[in-house]
Amino acid sequence: MTFDPLILLRNTEARHRYLDIMQAALDAVDPYRAVREQMRVEAGTLWVGDRSYRLARFRRILVVGAGKAGAPMARAVEDVLGDALAGGLVIVKSGHAAPTVRIELVEASHPIPDQVGVAAGQRMLAQVEAAGADDLVLTLLSGGGSALLEAPAGITLAELQAMTDALLACGATINEINCLRKHVSRVKGGQLARAASPATLVTLVLSDVVGSPLDVIASGPTVPDSTTWADAWAVVERYKLQERLPVAVLARLTAGRQGQLPDTPKPGDPLFVGAHTCVVGDNRVAALAACRRAEALGYRTLLLTSFVEGEAAEVAKVAVAVAREVRASGHPLAAPACLVLGGETTVTLGDAPGRGGRNQELALAASRLLDGMAGVTVASLATDGSDGPTDSAGGLVDGETIMRGRAGGLDADAALRRHDAYPSLRATGDLLLTGPTQTNVNDLIFVWVE
Amino acid sequence: MTFDPLILLRNTEARHRYLDIMQAALDAVDPYRAVREQMRVEAGTLWVGDRSYRLARFRRILVVGAGKAGAPMARAVEDVLGDALAGGLVIVKSGHAAPTVRIELVEASHPIPDQVGVAAGQRMLAQVEAAGADDLVLTLLSGGGSALLEAPAGITLAELQAMTDALLACGATINEINCLRKHVSRVKGGQLARAASPATLVTLVLSDVVGSPLDVIASGPTVPDSTTWADAWAVVERYKLQERLPVAVLARLTAGRQGQLPDTPKPGDPLFVGAHTCVVGDNRVAALAACRRAEALGYRTLLLTSFVEGEAAEVAKVAVAVAREVRASGHPLAAPACLVLGGETTVTLGDAPGRGGRNQELALAASRLLDGMAGVTVASLATDGSDGPTDSAGGLVDGETIMRGRAGGLDADAALRRHDAYPSLRATGDLLLTGPTQTNVNDLIFVWVE
Repeated sequence: MTFDPLILLRNTEARHRYLDIMQAALDAVDPYRAVREQMRVEAGTLWVGDRSYRLARFRRILVVGAGKAGAPMARAVEDVLGDALAGGLVIVKSGHAAPTVRIELVEASHPIPDQVGVAAGQRMLAQVEAAGADDLVLTLLSGGGSALLEAPAGITLAELQAMTDALLACGATINEINCLRKHVSRVKGGQLARAASPATLVTLVLSDVVGSPLDVIASGPTVPDSTTWADAWAVVERYKLQERLPVAVLARLTAGRQGQLPDTPKPGDPLFVGAHTCVVGDNRVAALAACRRAEALGYRTLLLTSFVEGEAAEVAKVAVAVAREVRASGHPLAAPACLVLGGETTVTLGDAPGRGGRNQELALAASRLLDGMAGVTVASLATDGSDGPTDSAGGLVDGETIMRGRAGGLDADAALRRHDAYPSLRATGDLLLTGPTQTNVNDLIFVWVE
Repeated sequence: MTFDPLILLRNTEARHRYLDIMQAALDAVDPYRAVREQMRVEAGTLWVGDRSYRLARFRRILVVGAGKAGAPMARAVEDVLGDALAGGLVIVKSGHAAPTVRIELVEASHPIPDQVGVAAGQRMLAQVEAAGADDLVLTLLSGGGSALLEAPAGITLAELQAMTDALLACGATINEINCLRKHVSRVKGGQLARAASPATLVTLVLSDVVGSPLDVIASGPTVPDSTTWADAWAVVERYKLQERLPVAVLARLTAGRQGQLPDTPKPGDPLFVGAHTCVVGDNRVAALAACRRAEALGYRTLLLTSFVEGEAAEVAKVAVAVAREVRASGHPLAAPACLVLGGETTVTLGDAPGRGGRNQELALAASRLLDGMAGVTVASLATDGSDGPTDSAGGLVDGETIMRGRAGGLDADAALRRHDAYPSLRATGDLLLTGPTQTNVNDLIFVWVE
C-alpha cells in the first residue's frame, strides 16, 4: 500500500469491517500493486495478464506512458523487469514523480498542458519511432494521460488550447471534442502505436473512465480510432467553428479531409495485430476485490454495476431501495449482504453551494432515507481519496446518522439543499478520510445489510 | 384475466417474450386471481395464505372492505366461500362495481370522499359491531380504500375536508396527515378491528403503497396504530393550525389528549391477537411472478428491489448501468438476463409539460442511454394500465428506439426536456398499451439483456 489507510471518525466493530472491505478495493487498484498483479517474469517469459512473451525475442524493452499514476506503475515495471529493461520515459503530473532507476519521469502540467509535457512527448515519440521489430514497447496509461501527453501535430500548444476553448464554448459533446483532439495530435487515437510499429506493443491501463473505454482513456494512443477527418470536419460545420478555430487548426483539418494527411489508424489496421492492452485496474477490479474481501468476512456479495451515472441524491435512493428489499425479502440476496455499485455520479449545484462532493452528497442523502433503519449502512467513496474540493474521500452512513446530527443541532435536509454535506458528516463522525491514494478508478458505492 | 392484454405497436419475437413476462406480472396481481391464489376451502377448512380456519367454528362469515379493486376481490371471496358466506358490504369507486351474489357493493366518490361513502361506512360499522365471537369478519382492502371508507368521528365530512385542506396547505408530511386522519375517524388506525372484536378478523390486502406498510394501506383499519392523541396535537402545534382547523376537529383532538376519548388501538393490544392480514398482491408479488415466467422462458432473473423511488430519468440511468454491467462482465448475473425493479418514480415537471407519465419518461430516458446498444431492452410499466394522464401504461425501448425516432424527425432530448414522452414512444412503436387493469401495485421496471 502506497497511501494512508481509510479512516472514519466514529467507529464500531461493523464499521471496522466496512473500512477493511473498502481498503481491499483501494489496495487492488493501487498502481504499483495493480501492475505487479498482472505482470511477472517466470523462466524467461514475461506475462502480462494472460499473454506471454519470451524475453529472449526482444533486443530492447522500452517503457513509455503518461498519467498521474505513472510513477508507481513505472516502479512496478522496473521491479518486474530489472536489468531486462532498456529505459524509457513516462510523463507524470507535477509533484507526482518518484525515484526510478531506468525509466525517466518527466513532471508536466495538468490539467492545462504545458511546453514541458509537449517537449517530453516529442522525445517519447522519437524513442518509440526508433524501436524495431525486435523491440518491446510497454505503454503505461492512467488518468490525466491525455493532457500530460500532448504532441500537437502541425499546430502550437496555444492553438491547441484555443481549439479546446472554442469547442467547450460551443457546447460540443465530449466525443466530438475528442474526435478533433485526436486529429490534431501526433500520438492520440492510435498514433503512438503507429509510431512504435513494427515493435511489439503492450499497453497497461489504470482506467479513470467509467466503463474503461480504451479509445477514451488517455485519448487511446495505442488503440484504433474509429473517427475520421470527415467526422472532425462535420463537428466544425455543426457548430459553425470556421470563424472561431485558429487558422492552423482549420488548415490541418482541411488538408486532412482532402486526403493530404494520413488519418488516425482504424480498427482492423494490421499495425494492431499482436498489440495487447491489459486493464490492470479499473472500477470493476476495485469493486470485485471488495466483494472478495467481504465474502471472506462472511457477506454475500453482488456487484450491481460499474457503470453508475446520475444525480448523487437520486442514486442514493436506488441504493437504499435495494437495501430495503434485502431486509424485506432477501432479494436480490439475503443478509448479511454487501452490494457494490461503481461509477461516477454528479451533483447539480445551485447558487452558493457549501462544502462537499458527490460521494458525501450521496451518503448524506442516503442517511435521510436510512433514518431509524437498523442494520443498513451505505458508503460512497472517491477512490482517489479526494471527493470534491474537500479533504474527504466520501461518507459512510447508517440509520443513526440523522439522529446523531440532530443531537448536534444539524439539519440534514437543509445541508443537502445547500450541497453542504461535509460539515454534517464530519460532525456525525461519518466522513471517510484518507490521504491522496495515488490512484483513481472513479467512485464506489457500498450497501451493507447485516 | 379480467382486463385486456398488454400490447405494443411494434413487435419482434423478443418483444413478444417481454410482453408475456409483463403480462405474468399483471396476471399475478389481478384482484380476482390474487384472492383466489391465497384463499381456498378444503374439507371444511378455509385457508388464507398459510393460516387455516375450521368453517364449522363460525356462525356467520361477513365480508367488508373498501378499495378500487373491491368488486373482483368480493367476487373471488364469493366464489371461494359460496353458501358459507352470510353477506357483507364493500365500498368501491364509482363505476367499479360488478355483479355480486351476497356481498353488497356500494359505489362512492374517489379521491374526494362523499356522503354516499360515509353512509355506507356507517352501515359497515354497524354490521361488524354486530359480529360476535363465533363470527368471521373478512376485510378486503385495496388502493383508494382510505377515501372510500371515511367514517368521520365527531366531525362532518365538510369539516374533515377542511382539515385535510389545511394540512396539505401547511406542508405537513403524509405521516402527519395520516396521524390526524386516524384520530378523527371511527375506522382508520385499527378502529374497524376494534369494532369487529370479538369476531375473528382476517384482512386481505392488495397493496398500492410502495413497501406495503399495513398501517398506511387504506389507513390501516384492521392493524395497530402507533400514533397517539399527543402526536396528533403536536402536529397542530408544529404548524400552528389552531386558527385554521375547524372547531369540531380541535374540540375532538383536545378531548382526546385530555384522556376523554379512547385512542386508536396500539401495537400489542389484545384485540389483534388472532387477527391475520394476508397481502394477496403487491409490487413484489407481481415482480416475482414476472421472474418466474422469465425463468420459464430461459432467462436468469433477479429482483433488485420493490422499493424504487426517485426521479424517473435518474432511475433509468441506474437501470441501464446494470444492463451495461451484465453485457460487460456478467455481473450481477449473466445474459440472457431479466432484472426487475419495482416501486414508483416521480417526474419533476417544469412549465407547460407535454404528454406522458413517469413510466414513459423513464423509458424514453433509457432509450437515449441505450442508443445503438444491441440486445438490451428496458421497459417501465404502470400496473394499473394508466401512466400519467394518457391512455398508455408505459414504454418499452431498445437500442434502436432513438434511431427509429430520428428517422421520423423526432428529437428525444427535446421531448424529455418538455416531459413529452408519449408522442415519441407512440411514433417509434414503443408505447405499452392495455386497458385499465383493475389493479394497482405501482410500477415495474424491466431490464432484459439477451
